[in-house]
Amino acid sequence: MTIVVENQAEVAECGCFLNAWLWFKQLVKNFMVKVVDNAISAKKLGKEDPRIIVHSLKVGFAITLVSLFYYFEPKFEYQGFGVSAMWAVLTVVVVFEFTVGATLGRAVNRAIATFLGASVAGGIHRLACFSGSKTIEPILLGFFLFLIVAVVTYLRFLPKLKARYDYGVLVFILTFSLVSVSGYHDKQVLEMAETRITTILIGCDIAVLVCIFICPVWAGQQLHDKISSNFEKIGSFLEVFGTDYLNTSSGEASEQKTSDLEGYKSVLNSKTAEEVLANFARWEPRHGKFRYRHPWGRYLEIGGIARDCAFRIHALNDYLNYETQVEQEIRTKIQEPCKKVSTECGHVLKELALAMKTMTYPHTITIHIDNAKIAAENLKTLLHTNSSWEGINFSDVIPMATVASLLIEIVSSSVKMVESFDKLATSARFKKTNQLAPVRVRTNSWKTRVTPDQPSTESVHHDVAGE
Amino acid sequence: MTIVVENQAEVAECGCFLNAWLWFKQLVKNFMVKVVDNAISAKKLGKEDPRIIVHSLKVGFAITLVSLFYYFEPKFEYQGFGVSAMWAVLTVVVVFEFTVGATLGRAVNRAIATFLGASVAGGIHRLACFSGSKTIEPILLGFFLFLIVAVVTYLRFLPKLKARYDYGVLVFILTFSLVSVSGYHDKQVLEMAETRITTILIGCDIAVLVCIFICPVWAGQQLHDKISSNFEKIGSFLEVFGTDYLNTSSGEASEQKTSDLEGYKSVLNSKTAEEVLANFARWEPRHGKFRYRHPWGRYLEIGGIARDCAFRIHALNDYLNYETQVEQEIRTKIQEPCKKVSTECGHVLKELALAMKTMTYPHTITIHIDNAKIAAENLKTLLHTNSSWEGINFSDVIPMATVASLLIEIVSSSVKMVESFDKLATSARFKKTNQLAPVRVRTNSWKTRVTPDQPSTESVHHDVAGE
Repeated sequence: MTIVVENQAEVAECGCFLNAWLWFKQLVKNFMVKVVDNAISAKKLGKEDPRIIVHSLKVGFAITLVSLFYYFEPKFEYQGFGVSAMWAVLTVVVVFEFTVGATLGRAVNRAIATFLGASVAGGIHRLACFSGSKTIEPILLGFFLFLIVAVVTYLRFLPKLKARYDYGVLVFILTFSLVSVSGYHDKQVLEMAETRITTILIGCDIAVLVCIFICPVWAGQQLHDKISSNFEKIGSFLEVFGTDYLNTSSGEASEQKTSDLEGYKSVLNSKTAEEVLANFARWEPRHGKFRYRHPWGRYLEIGGIARDCAFRIHALNDYLNYETQVEQEIRTKIQEPCKKVSTECGHVLKELALAMKTMTYPHTITIHIDNAKIAAENLKTLLHTNSSWEGINFSDVIPMATVASLLIEIVSSSVKMVESFDKLATSARFKKTNQLAPVRVRTNSWKTRVTPDQPSTESVHHDVAGE
Repeated sequence: MTIVVENQAEVAECGCFLNAWLWFKQLVKNFMVKVVDNAISAKKLGKEDPRIIVHSLKVGFAITLVSLFYYFEPKFEYQGFGVSAMWAVLTVVVVFEFTVGATLGRAVNRAIATFLGASVAGGIHRLACFSGSKTIEPILLGFFLFLIVAVVTYLRFLPKLKARYDYGVLVFILTFSLVSVSGYHDKQVLEMAETRITTILIGCDIAVLVCIFICPVWAGQQLHDKISSNFEKIGSFLEVFGTDYLNTSSGEASEQKTSDLEGYKSVLNSKTAEEVLANFARWEPRHGKFRYRHPWGRYLEIGGIARDCAFRIHALNDYLNYETQVEQEIRTKIQEPCKKVSTECGHVLKELALAMKTMTYPHTITIHIDNAKIAAENLKTLLHTNSSWEGINFSDVIPMATVASLLIEIVSSSVKMVESFDKLATSARFKKTNQLAPVRVRTNSWKTRVTPDQPSTESVHHDVAGE
């Protein structure tokens, strides 16, 4: 019996070990799967955007470069650098961003805010020293610390300040606190502030120089490309919608078509990204075809109109996989002008995308926009003509009519985009290969609309209400 | 003559001074105007959201508190704190955010990343020391610095890592660089790393404690309120659209009405803000009615459906100021069911908003949703009945029919929202004051739709496609 019991105990122990071993094996396996997954997505990331790899190498290079100051300090005989050298390293790490604009913005913010913060802290330290009393001095310093930090933290929430100077305000609070706190103890406030500013300037310089002179990524260029690709996506949808969906209702969608039809969705939520890029771009110096004061605000305006158009397309998209019981007769009747409107608008947007990319005035856009307007006009006439619809089931026509009226809306959106593009092209001095004729739409005479989405494009809207 | 010339010179000089004085006056005036403007908007900001004032005072308090460690250092006899005390101050400044979730996230990221960064840097320092050569050591250190910084910077771009741990990765790079750079010089790497970790932990603790225990602002609560207010805004639009616009076409809009009708626009671009809040909320411990693992993902899902509904409303909004030549007859015919649909959907959304706010199951929502479905059914029948439209100009009816079909879309959106809300209520354990009946819509039998906007809500969509 004893043997059996011992055996049982052994078996139980064995089972325990086995379980633990299995659990451990599973854990390792799960971990490995996660690692492999991440490695795959990391590899994919680098393939999709090789600039990320370059950026990583640049950051590594900049930090190694700034660390040389520290390594060979005795050789450089840089007086008083000592511990403060870490500020240079720290500055490079926090200032170096993906785009030049972001890096420059942070560098300028950091440099100026450090100077201001240190100055104010120095001033207050002097003020507190006047009291002469060992008891009052720390109380005064503490009071000022609390007051200024609270007030500046409050100001951080002002939208105007937040958009461009948020990092600067943070660094101001940081420097001010550090200098005024250590000032009480060390009695060498000015000296410390001075070294801090010098080292931070060195860090900023290195970060900015490396960022600009080694394969720079410009936020302005990114914004420019983004707006262009948004046009492209909306254009692709309209082209596919026109040629494919409105032609045959059989849903034989290829992969390319699906991606063309889904592309516009990223435009719906593009607002924040565009605003961030525009804010960065404003810091950038002249580069390539972009001046220092390139009209980035216009990009936001035109981006807003494109987004508005995407909202309409989203409503249109509801009717894409719409299995109709509508007779072929109605389909044929309303199909041609709808198809024309959709494809012509698609052409307009694709040409806008190309013109944007090459920064030229588009060649044939007036033709396409005129065609789109004429097609919209035809569509409208068709809808107006009672005789066309005699004997036809009213309810059969409704969804088609909805598609038609959404398409007419999209024509007016396209016209707005062309007008906004014209303004942008004028102020950004795009190359004139062909004059862009002034565009005016008369498609929506049967209703006066107000589309109050983009407050900045009101002037555009007035022209469009038309007739 | 000499006198005259002198006089002229005097006059010219005077003119110069006058101009300079006027220019200076203008400058001061402009500056004052800007200051006053900013002061006004700052005052407005505090009035609109007093939590900002409280937050500012909290930050001031936390920094003053942490600076006490430094002021009274000799009393505390905190060994080896010295210069490192600035890390505690720095930590409080950069970690303290508006919401508890953001602060906690940054604190945890910072603490763990500092520990990891210092450990890795220490390890590599040991490794480099093995070489023993004074020439090879800095080269080895420099190489590892470059390599690790580049690799980790690259990993920062992985979307999964970026969403929750971006700050942690940055701090890792920071600590690693600082410790390995200064390590070469000071030969006291471990000691320095240790103090840095200790002081940073103190800073994190103070920031987190002050943030949580003095009037905390919870990111989860904010997200919860935001979703609820989005429902409210969409509901308000639909109610006003139903009762007011569809009743009388005279555009006598009061200020309240305008704000009701414009409110939905903020929903259109709410995606980024919601995602950021959800990421913060995931860091938060149990608070109020929210558990630690509250289903924040569901909030994003339901927010996506609300946004989708807002896109449709944006299309509907085009028809708001639509001056119609439609005869009163058609208006009256189609108006009643449209009005019913709009107001009932408005009630549904407003009740959802209230239920969300109070975290209970809604009382009368099934009645309203049923009413909306019946009204949509009536509308559909009306559109289907040919006899209703005999002798009526087809084109007159088109815009009205578009409004009707958009409203029917909105009913199905509302149903999706109710279903998604039901799921949220189940997983978040809302109070059951009344059972929410399962909802199924049969309004869109004349078309099968695919609305592929929110990938995460596919299961919801299937239920809704219905019949």
